[in-house]
Amino acid sequence: MTITQATSSGTLKIDGGRLWDSLEALGKIGAYLDEETGLVGVRRLALTDQDVAGRELALGWMREAGLAVRLDRMGNVRARREGAQPDLAPIVLGSHLDSVATAGRFDGCLGVLGGLEVIRTLNDEGIGTRRPIELAVWTEEEGCRFGTDMLGSAVAAGRITEPDARALTDAAGISVGEELDRHGLVGPVAVPVDPPAGYLECHIEQGPILGSEGYRIGVVTGVQAILWQRLTFHGRAAHAGTTPDELRRSATLAASLVTVHLDDMVKSGRFGELRASVGRFETSPNLVNIVAAEALITVDLRNPEEEAILAARDELGRYCREVSERTGVTIEAVTTAHTPPANFAPEMMDLVEQTAGELGMNNRRIMSGAGHDAGEMAAICPTGMVFVPGLYDGISHNPREYSTPEACADGVNVLLHCALSLAGRA
Amino acid sequence: MTITQATSSGTLKIDGGRLWDSLEALGKIGAYLDEETGLVGVRRLALTDQDVAGRELALGWMREAGLAVRLDRMGNVRARREGAQPDLAPIVLGSHLDSVATAGRFDGCLGVLGGLEVIRTLNDEGIGTRRPIELAVWTEEEGCRFGTDMLGSAVAAGRITEPDARALTDAAGISVGEELDRHGLVGPVAVPVDPPAGYLECHIEQGPILGSEGYRIGVVTGVQAILWQRLTFHGRAAHAGTTPDELRRSATLAASLVTVHLDDMVKSGRFGELRASVGRFETSPNLVNIVAAEALITVDLRNPEEEAILAARDELGRYCREVSERTGVTIEAVTTAHTPPANFAPEMMDLVEQTAGELGMNNRRIMSGAGHDAGEMAAICPTGMVFVPGLYDGISHNPREYSTPEACADGVNVLLHCALSLAGRA
Repeated sequence: MTITQATSSGTLKIDGGRLWDSLEALGKIGAYLDEETGLVGVRRLALTDQDVAGRELALGWMREAGLAVRLDRMGNVRARREGAQPDLAPIVLGSHLDSVATAGRFDGCLGVLGGLEVIRTLNDEGIGTRRPIELAVWTEEEGCRFGTDMLGSAVAAGRITEPDARALTDAAGISVGEELDRHGLVGPVAVPVDPPAGYLECHIEQGPILGSEGYRIGVVTGVQAILWQRLTFHGRAAHAGTTPDELRRSATLAASLVTVHLDDMVKSGRFGELRASVGRFETSPNLVNIVAAEALITVDLRNPEEEAILAARDELGRYCREVSERTGVTIEAVTTAHTPPANFAPEMMDLVEQTAGELGMNNRRIMSGAGHDAGEMAAICPTGMVFVPGLYDGISHNPREYSTPEACADGVNVLLHCALSLAGRA
Repeated sequence: MTITQATSSGTLKIDGGRLWDSLEALGKIGAYLDEETGLVGVRRLALTDQDVAGRELALGWMREAGLAVRLDRMGNVRARREGAQPDLAPIVLGSHLDSVATAGRFDGCLGVLGGLEVIRTLNDEGIGTRRPIELAVWTEEEGCRFGTDMLGSAVAAGRITEPDARALTDAAGISVGEELDRHGLVGPVAVPVDPPAGYLECHIEQGPILGSEGYRIGVVTGVQAILWQRLTFHGRAAHAGTTPDELRRSATLAASLVTVHLDDMVKSGRFGELRASVGRFETSPNLVNIVAAEALITVDLRNPEEEAILAARDELGRYCREVSERTGVTIEAVTTAHTPPANFAPEMMDLVEQTAGELGMNNRRIMSGAGHDAGEMAAICPTGMVFVPGLYDGISHNPREYSTPEACADGVNVLLHCALSLAGRA
């Protein structure tokens, strides 16, 4: 089957205007005025009233589209469009509706509302499928509130247990379980869930590559491994004027040496396609004329290869020991996150690539730098992702996050034809 | 004159217990419970009610000792014990009573109360002097509240003008002038003041050298030059996972490179006895998975030689340009403080050294790493300082700051005999 034969009246297309209107309407839930940018941003932290309000708007649209909405025990949504062969495992399209504290309108929402737009289009055209198609909304993808990202999909895929997930707490000590119970989001579907026949997620790239290279579609090859460490440096406070160099134990110097070494590691090429970022850097007492006694930095390592990220972690540990000897500063490292790489199924990459090509959209294969629910689903079923470019170097987790109506429609048109191909026309 | 001939009944000595009691009583004014150390610290920021309460206690003691208390237009205190030849310029003993926000009981107070103890001892022994002896209490030595240290003594010595000093404001926008007026501290003595015949200040070392080397007295040779810069780094926020290395402009990396380079500069020996400290290090948005867009660090340079500190500043500027080219991060540098080195008069160093030796106290010459009011007075009169060791590596600006009763008495005994030598027995 080629796409140009899909309908008698030409290539089947989603309604880009309707998709855009839905994105805009959803973006009003949890809207706030961002002081730094002066823009209206989105704040729907997972399982807050704002998050639930966003879900309700989307679930209302799903019901209007004739879908049967069910919840699993983690509050993950499955909204089902029945197939001609209901016993076949479904094709699942999904993403998340929760957001970071300073979000735009696209991250996650494009995947959920894109899936909805696929359903609406099939409904409008009266197209039935052999397999059921289900829309998924995953709980707490961002990890901003309860500290673990991809939480709902990780429980659905069996990487994290339901009790462990329910026990996680936010900064105020409120647990995931309490919030699921309070909102009535504990559904009857057991976790881990039955594996679908395939999972597809459309998402903005959240990076600069597609935009800078002029591609309309990214064929995602997988999600790179992520390893986070929090390093604390214990030196000794000392007067900046009176303490000779040889008696200093500067926590700031030790933390800076590690920060510079991480960059050297990246540029050495010894760790493959390593990315390393020191996002937080804090010192105490943080005064102009006192050598800092304490410092804290966070290290964010990414790599497409698990072996390479572990080698980078080991080199970081070795270098910390060297710095500790050299500076007299003791260094503690705690691993706060570690997810192995997810490699998407070759047949799914081929499908996305072929579909984009047939729709006339230039495209390239791209590894996802950010984590996604698709990374979890890849453990239990053939999984693919469709990236669309974002503007402004792909800025995300920021009210400036923006993808054009055309780019959003591109991605969802690819999603539509991939889903149709996987589910099969009835 | 040698000291052993000073009195018929043996060597003249101050009352160490009385000195200690005064230090303890003054330490109760502005006392607070320090959460980090669990100790009772001192907080008498300049020209606050606490600072004024501390002054009043000390001024009460000065009046009880028969001194005539006058104020200059900056609130600097001069408490005078008349000499047999009132027309001769006085010998001034002094220091400050204001403190940092987390202080101990010694910094500054030892110099003021030590001077008072000298007067009390002379009174007790009925010893008159040829020259008048005056006690000085300088306003806002720490610079913690209004941003400029040695403020009162700098105005008295003519380095800063009275209007400039009065115009300085604290974080709440309250000016030095308003506070001087509110507390009634604008006195009749004009600034800059008439040069005294000599100035002596006893102070804790605030560093580890005397303690670690086992010396009882430090003969201070001067105050090293101080140069502070605030560097701001403007990079670009970027997603830690999705942004390729070549597209990053990490403010944190740039700031870390500068921090490491400063340490290399110190260890290179190219800048003499350079000390360099990055006391503050802040990044924004300071999140684990975002490459920081902005960073701020402070650089504190010290050097006994003005030429060497300027060379270090220039090398810092050159390296910042190199880092800027390498990282794509723009760097702004603002000099927030710069005081040239003060070299004390050779005859004052000789006097302190000889006096300590005659009192049987082992001693060494030492450059002051911290700024002191004596550094300002050195511009207008022969000036000397007497250092006593502090415990715990000389920690200061911290409630752990501690000098033993014996060490305090040592310093003030040296002060007594130096003052007597300079003022001359009547």
